[in-house]
Amino acid sequence: MYTYDDLYTIFSEELKKQNFTKEPTELYEPIRYAISQCGKRLRPILTLMACDLFEVDIQHAIYQAIAIELLHNFSLIQDDVMDQSPIRHGKITVYKKWSPNIAILAADTLYALAYKYIVQAKVEKLPALLDTFNNTAIKTCTGQQMDLNFEKKTTVTKDDYLLMSQLKTALLFAASLKIGAIVAGAPEKDANHLYNFGVNIGMAFQLKDDLLDVYGDEKVFGKKTGEDILENKKTFLFVSAMELANDKTRHTLMQLSSDTKLDPQDKIKAIKIIFDQLNIRQHTEQAIDNYLDKGLLQLQLVDRPAKSKVHLIRLANKMIQRIN
Amino acid sequence: MYTYDDLYTIFSEELKKQNFTKEPTELYEPIRYAISQCGKRLRPILTLMACDLFEVDIQHAIYQAIAIELLHNFSLIQDDVMDQSPIRHGKITVYKKWSPNIAILAADTLYALAYKYIVQAKVEKLPALLDTFNNTAIKTCTGQQMDLNFEKKTTVTKDDYLLMSQLKTALLFAASLKIGAIVAGAPEKDANHLYNFGVNIGMAFQLKDDLLDVYGDEKVFGKKTGEDILENKKTFLFVSAMELANDKTRHTLMQLSSDTKLDPQDKIKAIKIIFDQLNIRQHTEQAIDNYLDKGLLQLQLVDRPAKSKVHLIRLANKMIQRIN
Repeated sequence: MYTYDDLYTIFSEELKKQNFTKEPTELYEPIRYAISQCGKRLRPILTLMACDLFEVDIQHAIYQAIAIELLHNFSLIQDDVMDQSPIRHGKITVYKKWSPNIAILAADTLYALAYKYIVQAKVEKLPALLDTFNNTAIKTCTGQQMDLNFEKKTTVTKDDYLLMSQLKTALLFAASLKIGAIVAGAPEKDANHLYNFGVNIGMAFQLKDDLLDVYGDEKVFGKKTGEDILENKKTFLFVSAMELANDKTRHTLMQLSSDTKLDPQDKIKAIKIIFDQLNIRQHTEQAIDNYLDKGLLQLQLVDRPAKSKVHLIRLANKMIQRIN
Repeated sequence: MYTYDDLYTIFSEELKKQNFTKEPTELYEPIRYAISQCGKRLRPILTLMACDLFEVDIQHAIYQAIAIELLHNFSLIQDDVMDQSPIRHGKITVYKKWSPNIAILAADTLYALAYKYIVQAKVEKLPALLDTFNNTAIKTCTGQQMDLNFEKKTTVTKDDYLLMSQLKTALLFAASLKIGAIVAGAPEKDANHLYNFGVNIGMAFQLKDDLLDVYGDEKVFGKKTGEDILENKKTFLFVSAMELANDKTRHTLMQLSSDTKLDPQDKIKAIKIIFDQLNIRQHTEQAIDNYLDKGLLQLQLVDRPAKSKVHLIRLANKMIQRIN
């Protein structure tokens, strides 16, 4: 069985081999730039691991892994246009380095290319592959739209937040695993357990991301903490605090959150104090653990020997950075 | 065989039946708005006509026709974002009515939905269908990027222009026809002749569009003439004039084109005088006729009785509005 590190190397080399050097330069240069940014490649590696779990040569799933990574990059580029984010992975974003129009077209092209890769499979597997891929793409858009709506909403419940995160983030992890299983010809039941494993570890991943924004080590996390607080984002921490607080504290939170005159560091500090009073850190860690446990239970149900699942379990833990 | 009017009615009713009333409203309301705009539905009707040509029930191609129309609408919505166009088909654009972000996400969703429709076919037809659909989507993006590049370029040759128009506009007509033929199980040779027919009538359509901007009847054309001149667009008329003019006239054209202080009506008038001196109207009409003739020759090569092609020929003529 392949480890995360093995697959990271294999996948990176395969991605490099792909010919994204076509004309016009204005379109393919941003594409190459975007996909060469060194993310953790979690999603395509999940695809390859899912395939490997059924003892099928991972080369059979390599194009689908690339499709997943291209789809992911498509949504990152577009999100940066919509959020007008200048920085991603510590580097200047496509939108900022080139222009919004070039970013939109480069993203479209990545999306169309993703479909070219996903269909590089045996014909009889196409309906299941495309069904999973299409539905995920549509749901990701829905999640992104919900997220945009949250910016204008004053009350976002925890359920709203969880649904949005599932659609926008977790389902792509789920689809990555299921697609690997489909290519491997896994029984549908097992493919669905892997999908559910993915939904849960995807949720854990998102909650951990929210947690790190407030309680992360800036050196390790790679970006400044408190950004979500300053952007008044409805994170898991914020929506949980709103639900756990009494009326008075809830009122203070809302006031702080919409205050635009407050010094940024004071704002972060004040909200953090409330989070601490309400034990939001522990509350979030508990939720992450619950998602991880639910995910691992689904993985257990996959009809494969326990020892073959060890790398998936390690990767799930890596995703929430219990171990590295 | 079905006429254009028959198919317009059938297609419009099928499109209305589709369920685009999902949540969130912010995403599906603009989608419904965009696809309910009354265009001529030329592309999906070409798909249905191509299917009908092989005496296969057009219901077999209805989902592919919808896919084509959704892909077309995806690109219209995005083009309007990029060009910041407030009006399309005489109505306010999605980008202007809602917001650029909503337009981008609605377009993405249309794109993903298009893939859901294109795959509603027999499994063995999926590789050919997806290959045609994917390549067209990628090439449309390339054409749009070239068009954006033209805005900044001082010299655009006629060849540059023709390549851009082929990619951005003509290939979708070609793909519409080929997809109908694939669904109908037509021989590959015939599907390719239909594709080439589509490329040529697509080019004729684009050149006619350029021509109408300068020489169209505003009442019939439905928009003001001279818009392309005011936006300094490198149309077929402009690039032809640049090639046909002597050095002195070419210099005048370039000066006029980049002049931002000139009164708009004076600018249109001055450039039109040069076009008239160079016989650009006749030159363009000749080019349109040539494309139509080349297209009809390809249609002739399709191994079907001449009488079964009459509605395709009428539609090709309608596209360049020789007859209505």
